[in-house]
Amino acid sequence: MDTAISDDIKALLRKCSVATLSTQLFKRGLRQTVMQGVRPLSQGPEPMVGEAFTLRFIPAREDLDHVGVFADPNHPQRKAIETVPPGHVLVCDCRGDARAASGGSILLTRLKVRGVAGFVSDGGLRDSPEIAELGFPVYFGGPAPMLNLARHHAVDLNQPIGCGGVAVFPGDVLVGDGEGVIVIPRHLAKEVAHDAAEQERLEQFVIEEVRKGAPVIGTYPPKEAALARYQEWLKRQPKG
Amino acid sequence: MDTAISDDIKALLRKCSVATLSTQLFKRGLRQTVMQGVRPLSQGPEPMVGEAFTLRFIPAREDLDHVGVFADPNHPQRKAIETVPPGHVLVCDCRGDARAASGGSILLTRLKVRGVAGFVSDGGLRDSPEIAELGFPVYFGGPAPMLNLARHHAVDLNQPIGCGGVAVFPGDVLVGDGEGVIVIPRHLAKEVAHDAAEQERLEQFVIEEVRKGAPVIGTYPPKEAALARYQEWLKRQPKG
Amino acid sequence: MDTAISDDIKALLRKCSVATLSTQLFKRGLRQTVMQGVRPLSQGPEPMVGEAFTLRFIPAREDLDHVGVFADPNHPQRKAIETVPPGHVLVCDCRGDARAASGGSILLTRLKVRGVAGFVSDGGLRDSPEIAELGFPVYFGGPAPMLNLARHHAVDLNQPIGCGGVAVFPGDVLVGDGEGVIVIPRHLAKEVAHDAAEQERLEQFVIEEVRKGAPVIGTYPPKEAALARYQEWLKRQPKG
Amino acid sequence: MDTAISDDIKALLRKCSVATLSTQLFKRGLRQTVMQGVRPLSQGPEPMVGEAFTLRFIPAREDLDHVGVFADPNHPQRKAIETVPPGHVLVCDCRGDARAASGGSILLTRLKVRGVAGFVSDGGLRDSPEIAELGFPVYFGGPAPMLNLARHHAVDLNQPIGCGGVAVFPGDVLVGDGEGVIVIPRHLAKEVAHDAAEQERLEQFVIEEVRKGAPVIGTYPPKEAALARYQEWLKRQPKG
Amino acid sequence: MDTAISDDIKALLRKCSVATLSTQLFKRGLRQTVMQGVRPLSQGPEPMVGEAFTLRFIPAREDLDHVGVFADPNHPQRKAIETVPPGHVLVCDCRGDARAASGGSILLTRLKVRGVAGFVSDGGLRDSPEIAELGFPVYFGGPAPMLNLARHHAVDLNQPIGCGGVAVFPGDVLVGDGEGVIVIPRHLAKEVAHDAAEQERLEQFVIEEVRKGAPVIGTYPPKEAALARYQEWLKRQPKG
Amino acid sequence: MDTAISDDIKALLRKCSVATLSTQLFKRGLRQTVMQGVRPLSQGPEPMVGEAFTLRFIPAREDLDHVGVFADPNHPQRKAIETVPPGHVLVCDCRGDARAASGGSILLTRLKVRGVAGFVSDGGLRDSPEIAELGFPVYFGGPAPMLNLARHHAVDLNQPIGCGGVAVFPGDVLVGDGEGVIVIPRHLAKEVAHDAAEQERLEQFVIEEVRKGAPVIGTYPPKEAALARYQEWLKRQPKG
Repeated sequence: MDTAISDDIKALLRKCSVATLSTQLFKRGLRQTVMQGVRPLSQGPEPMVGEAFTLRFIPAREDLDHVGVFADPNHPQRKAIETVPPGHVLVCDCRGDARAASGGSILLTRLKVRGVAGFVSDGGLRDSPEIAELGFPVYFGGPAPMLNLARHHAVDLNQPIGCGGVAVFPGDVLVGDGEGVIVIPRHLAKEVAHDAAEQERLEQFVIEEVRKGAPVIGTYPPKEAALARYQEWLKRQPKG
Repeated sequence: MDTAISDDIKALLRKCSVATLSTQLFKRGLRQTVMQGVRPLSQGPEPMVGEAFTLRFIPAREDLDHVGVFADPNHPQRKAIETVPPGHVLVCDCRGDARAASGGSILLTRLKVRGVAGFVSDGGLRDSPEIAELGFPVYFGGPAPMLNLARHHAVDLNQPIGCGGVAVFPGDVLVGDGEGVIVIPRHLAKEVAHDAAEQERLEQFVIEEVRKGAPVIGTYPPKEAALARYQEWLKRQPKG
Repeated sequence: MDTAISDDIKALLRKCSVATLSTQLFKRGLRQTVMQGVRPLSQGPEPMVGEAFTLRFIPAREDLDHVGVFADPNHPQRKAIETVPPGHVLVCDCRGDARAASGGSILLTRLKVRGVAGFVSDGGLRDSPEIAELGFPVYFGGPAPMLNLARHHAVDLNQPIGCGGVAVFPGDVLVGDGEGVIVIPRHLAKEVAHDAAEQERLEQFVIEEVRKGAPVIGTYPPKEAALARYQEWLKRQPKG
Repeated sequence: MDTAISDDIKALLRKCSVATLSTQLFKRGLRQTVMQGVRPLSQGPEPMVGEAFTLRFIPAREDLDHVGVFADPNHPQRKAIETVPPGHVLVCDCRGDARAASGGSILLTRLKVRGVAGFVSDGGLRDSPEIAELGFPVYFGGPAPMLNLARHHAVDLNQPIGCGGVAVFPGDVLVGDGEGVIVIPRHLAKEVAHDAAEQERLEQFVIEEVRKGAPVIGTYPPKEAALARYQEWLKRQPKG
Repeated sequence: MDTAISDDIKALLRKCSVATLSTQLFKRGLRQTVMQGVRPLSQGPEPMVGEAFTLRFIPAREDLDHVGVFADPNHPQRKAIETVPPGHVLVCDCRGDARAASGGSILLTRLKVRGVAGFVSDGGLRDSPEIAELGFPVYFGGPAPMLNLARHHAVDLNQPIGCGGVAVFPGDVLVGDGEGVIVIPRHLAKEVAHDAAEQERLEQFVIEEVRKGAPVIGTYPPKEAALARYQEWLKRQPKG
Repeated sequence: MDTAISDDIKALLRKCSVATLSTQLFKRGLRQTVMQGVRPLSQGPEPMVGEAFTLRFIPAREDLDHVGVFADPNHPQRKAIETVPPGHVLVCDCRGDARAASGGSILLTRLKVRGVAGFVSDGGLRDSPEIAELGFPVYFGGPAPMLNLARHHAVDLNQPIGCGGVAVFPGDVLVGDGEGVIVIPRHLAKEVAHDAAEQERLEQFVIEEVRKGAPVIGTYPPKEAALARYQEWLKRQPKG
């Protein structure tokens, strides 16, 4: 993980929608970046941005996955909750199976208390109404009262995984907004953050024009006249 | 399109739920009329009623669908946005694939500004949280931050299409409410509007009876006694 | 139905989440207990608890399922609405097909007026926005404006059925909360209610600890020290 | 079951493909007649034709569905095997879940020995390679080594069911060929058999014409000239 | 369609598997090229290679799609059968819905008689056992006895379509083998044919080496030593 | 891996069907043992029995998964082919995505040459017609001409994985027959092999009885009289 993800980059990313970031990755040839079947359950005071810390589940096996396993302090799910670094996002690979939970309100509360940046899973979550009240960024495959042991066997931490059909390597940067979650490969985070922030600025101008009656043809993308107006507009914008 | 859809018909249709309209079409032998997998994202000040103007997508091809294509003023998606007549509904055939967008907040804002009656797609939409704030009737397959080029290649305008598993011919009448969207074949719009409005009136009476304690058997559908009460009730209703 | 479901048991169950109840059934070897594809449309003033009264549909047949059938006072769907006992839950087996309704606002209003405990279906519901306003516990497969006759043919009442992939025998106890619905085999209701209520109490303690900064390891499940604190905590709790 | 299904009708039906029969039912307004997700595993010396005898399964429950249940001589699955009348077809409703078996080679062998006309299930079958050798008409949802108890709980015999998305009433006539299975409502069997046999005859003529170079337009459906040739052709056909 | 598809190119393509062709398109950035859900029903004396002639269906509508429509000599399905040029492939867009047929044995026989190169559909086919005997290249979504009118309404010929999730433009080159069908954009056909034929030659060498005991590492892809052996091997191959 | 899997156990397992083995595991409380969506492509001279050696894929990422990667001698897929021990089964976790290959004829030929016991994947395979000719046990999710890089990124060897919805730990025993594949937890292999072989013997007797006209009730499972006949039958069987 040679490319540090600075606070500046994270701040830029917080200004960008997942939609805009997906366009930037698409321009770089990356098409499988937005998780499918993973939707927001709740959001925090600001958009979720953080590096991935992963937890991998395989299908459960009845003789291994009984309620006694949680007494083991090294059970990978419980260990993940206590070892994901603050500011990181805990990402779970549940093979897209949301028929059982990958966590519940107690574990999610602990993540929030620990200063973790968010939780993402393509499995289910139990206690989802309580979790929705936490004010903590959570993305999931759907409500699933059934405990994780019924379907999921936790195996390892911080290995490359798939989540929502997207490859997630530890340290990749995850961004979540009101639509979903995108995975930005770590080595691209900086340039994507800058280009996406610029795209956001331009689209802010475009939507203002459209609200005032401009047609999309010529404005989006902007042709010469619109670009000139954009340059003027930019000068009028507050710094930052 | 010989059968004009008058403002009177549209006004009647706005009083009818999609459920009621589906019963009227069912009575006429039409069963595949309500779109599947197409749900409301947002609604306008009044229910969506309008004639269909269609846009067809086929699967994307990587060498054709790059971000440069939007510079072409004749790109079908952009052209659709500018040419759908006010009062009509823009309907997109995305083959039910909601993994990528069929539009975003800039395009949808333009539709609203232009006085279009609504937007319907069995594909996804990006910027869905912003679109939800527009106060404009929008029905879609789900949030999809990924831009349309990743999955969808726009090919033509105003051809017959499928959307949500229902045939849509240009000029058919689309009605949307809080549950979904129904397609009324143009030649049936007038008679269906009248019969559905009458059905709504009867069901208004029925639900009032049921709230007061009437059993459904004998009341829904109404037998002789209930029908007599209905005639009395009708006399007490305000005109219009 | 030899094991009576007393008001005390029902009161205990109302304090328990579906998640907690699923853990208790999991401990007893039951894994297929939470309905899949059945979600809340609306909830009542208190959580849904009631014994199952069932209605079974098979696929519709065009010559049998025309709008005239509802004139028959013995049509099973209408009969179900009038004969499900107050305090019970009407559960519909639609084979997981939510493309057509299993009921609408008139029937659901009648259920509420009659004092029925709730409605559960793995099919669709029409008039779902109106139903959502009833303040009555309703769980369903999704909005479906199309009337039931288009897909579903009602055949019998109070037979064993499947709903959401779970076996439901008449008299089983259904509990619904903000996440979904669980089926508790009648003979297990009493012991599950007691054990689940106790689990809820413990988890209440645990989440308070976690909010105050306790790690999940050692607290959930509680080891010796945490158990001691729990005993102290219990003494401080109000009765009831 | 007032309309007897004579041997003559059955003989006519054996000459008709499921495709042709589906056209005849379509002409009568019936569209949901061919089972979906139910395919041939093996066929007998002649096409399967027989009246439906039904077996219904609901989802399994772990405390009820253990291997001990088969010791009960009244277990519905075993009872079905011994009571389906010779010449009838045993049809199983597995709710389209082919992840576990609805039978295996021992039960299917018994059906053949007993002179049953065939076996149809929208669930799985175990020992499918052995069953494929029986020379007995079998239609199923796919190979499923896992025994039925893992997913399916047998509840009752000879009730109306759904199978492959089609309503099946006891006594309906099932026909199976190399493509699949169709359900003919009992009261329509006679007229459908006659009209379908006639359609088969015409299509035999048409395909001979097409093989000789006739275009489909004008031949299929036949216009005047082709119809005249057909009348000639009919005279040349052997009787019966 | 400026780039002619010569007989030489077609001959080269007949020597290439769909797998090999997909690698060549993948190298050029094209990933959505192999149809999904479209499998061989039967094959001809040589692999299917031909230019696409398209037929588009939208969902059926009950009032338009009755059996009388085939009397119209301009019905698009029947017209497609008579107008697809010999040597071309008729490709049908059924929106991936294989619950009803897109053709049957009479139409497919006519295509063979007319010297058409093959038939491809992501819908179903009726009379599939008879079609399988034709010795004609046919790819489809599965057996479907139900006639096309039940689900599909034919709308136009030779427009861009989707089939099996892949864009198909009239004139694109379709190749089918024992695994499936690939769509080669017309402008790439020549270069892809040459490179794929060369890849086939190398892989022929590689598999011979592997059969003799060579490890895949160093052989596939070949490193220096293997490449030298390949050059020797090439000299020993017969011309052509 | 303390429990050795002797040749004797393997020989016993080769006599047992996957169906029979699933019953034995079901009796021990294990229900998720038979892979779903994984079917035979070809079989060897004897049934597949071997210990699991695993290969794990996550979703592909366009910048990592280009055709150049196979030049790396440590690419996990290629390394797996060369390091899976003879007599073991190579099992691939493709997250159930069969839209791209997990191998092709060259790699599968190498596995056969090396004396590997079989290949199992819940992804696709390319060159499937050629592989089907190898006479080597292969189980897969379906034909997929598209190369693995389009969907799958190989990450590690011999870690616990999921395949076809079943947990697979390295060293578990996989058995495959004409229906599918079952995973036997290593510590249960010995006892399951013995009990399954005995069950096979009993079922051989039962099916002979049924062929001779015995009813299933009383014979399967056998009651007293049948058990007595079974004891006699056993004495008549050849040893071994």
